[in-house]
Amino acid sequence: LNEFEAIRRISGRLPDPPPEVIVPIGDDCAVLRFGDALWVVAADMLIEERHFRGSWATPEDVGYKAVAVNVSDVAAMGAVPRFVLASGGAPEAETTLRCMEGVLEACEEFGAYPLGGDTTGAAALTVDVAILGQLAHAPVLRSGADPGDLLAVTGELGASAAGLLALENGETAPERLIKKHLRPEPRVTLGRAAARLGASAMIDLSDGLASDVRHVCEMSDVGCCIDLGLLPVAGDTREYALSAGRDPEILAATGGEDYELLVAAPEEVVEALAAESEVPVTVVGQTTRGRVEFVRDGKPVENLSGWDHFADA
Amino acid sequence: LNEFEAIRRISGRLPDPPPEVIVPIGDDCAVLRFGDALWVVAADMLIEERHFRGSWATPEDVGYKAVAVNVSDVAAMGAVPRFVLASGGAPEAETTLRCMEGVLEACEEFGAYPLGGDTTGAAALTVDVAILGQLAHAPVLRSGADPGDLLAVTGELGASAAGLLALENGETAPERLIKKHLRPEPRVTLGRAAARLGASAMIDLSDGLASDVRHVCEMSDVGCCIDLGLLPVAGDTREYALSAGRDPEILAATGGEDYELLVAAPEEVVEALAAESEVPVTVVGQTTRGRVEFVRDGKPVENLSGWDHFADA
Repeated sequence: LNEFEAIRRISGRLPDPPPEVIVPIGDDCAVLRFGDALWVVAADMLIEERHFRGSWATPEDVGYKAVAVNVSDVAAMGAVPRFVLASGGAPEAETTLRCMEGVLEACEEFGAYPLGGDTTGAAALTVDVAILGQLAHAPVLRSGADPGDLLAVTGELGASAAGLLALENGETAPERLIKKHLRPEPRVTLGRAAARLGASAMIDLSDGLASDVRHVCEMSDVGCCIDLGLLPVAGDTREYALSAGRDPEILAATGGEDYELLVAAPEEVVEALAAESEVPVTVVGQTTRGRVEFVRDGKPVENLSGWDHFADA
Repeated sequence: LNEFEAIRRISGRLPDPPPEVIVPIGDDCAVLRFGDALWVVAADMLIEERHFRGSWATPEDVGYKAVAVNVSDVAAMGAVPRFVLASGGAPEAETTLRCMEGVLEACEEFGAYPLGGDTTGAAALTVDVAILGQLAHAPVLRSGADPGDLLAVTGELGASAAGLLALENGETAPERLIKKHLRPEPRVTLGRAAARLGASAMIDLSDGLASDVRHVCEMSDVGCCIDLGLLPVAGDTREYALSAGRDPEILAATGGEDYELLVAAPEEVVEALAAESEVPVTVVGQTTRGRVEFVRDGKPVENLSGWDHFADA
């Protein structure tokens, strides 16, 4: 049983949605119509020893990241974050409070207003954030990709995974990579621009490109071909991966927690997006009428897989 | 440091709220205006060994209760539950899924539609629910009580606490009391009626009457006098409390998790509420210009205290 089977089992039991529901469970966010406006909602939970270790993430980091990963889900619909609810628990009240300080810091950073939540005791530091975002354009769903769309990613891949490797090795450098892991930068401006420009499909890269592109392809009923040689992998990421005995492109495709966006769109939309964005937009492949394929140097790469939410960290 | 100090420390750091925010953090729910409608939002988290033991609550019970306690917060504003996000984790994927089945069962029971959430691995069964409710009338806040209002409670008190005693003693009876603890019945219809009839203030009884009435009094800047002899304590609750060596009225005033409503309102409003409600509405005291006081047989009762969210269960 993995998370996607769980969602399928759960969503198979749902009654018909009320009229406000434009998009139900199954995308980065659900979409609701309240009056004239479209809103998106999502939630994500972080738990010590599953998503982070207390030895390398401060409670503030954890609270900050819990908001950032939800903001990333909002960005992946083309929406902007507006309101947050945060529930947290830890063995010490002071730890819970420090985690909530991180929540507030992120709310300030991303322009979301905290509406409350819950605090409790817990054996392991735990924080769950629910978020409300607002759309100015039609939402960009996972299901809208057409065969022949370009597949582009924002920013860079693998930096967070390399930072995680460093943390797991007990290191405090490279600092840039570690910061990428602990304090992700969700792509709100870029996601909104993609919605305005008419991207076909979008998802945020939380489980890793290899896994997340499958969700887009399955829901859009398309295949794809991704060239690992095209992935935007920074020099320091590449260097650290190699020093740790890891293949940089495989790490970038499967490491997860990039919190970049994967955009499927016609060529002219990708070009317009790249032209107006301060963050790099890199074409890494294309959707097809075939199956999901990864290649490098013209040869197929098999067995790339991503994160299973039920497995241990 | 307790939860209320934490809320004060956190809310002291908040920027000015956006225009949609009618009531910010600090009440049972925050209140938002979306278009023409008023919405309430809240979140509550349950964690194994803090809020329940795996030996006496099934995962389905836990998921169900996580929704029910949020519905109770919605009811305490006079709103009806509409949408739910649920995040859950457990050591086994199957346990998480069973917890989510309980979430769905409660959503069906209370008429809320599940919009998604998150599932993960966790050392202890953990579930956090965020809820969106809708108001048909002005929200009833904790802060609106006037001196001389009657204080009335819905249903009965102490049954849940007696059920918890039974569970902690490893017993499977009395079944009615145990069910009251595991599957609370939030008072949605009654809360909505209280809002329509113009109640002054309202709160749901989660921490226990002795603690929760203090929140109403502090936020309304009133005192109160509650007569423990007036508390609606059922015969089986009384009997079980006595058999466990506990004072029934003290248990009813401090045990917590009743998920009944405490309503402050002028006499005619309480009478109208009692007249139209199928659930008993019992006057237990009155607000005053003095301090918060509890009496029994005409004598003061001191040192009644409720639940501290940071303390162990």
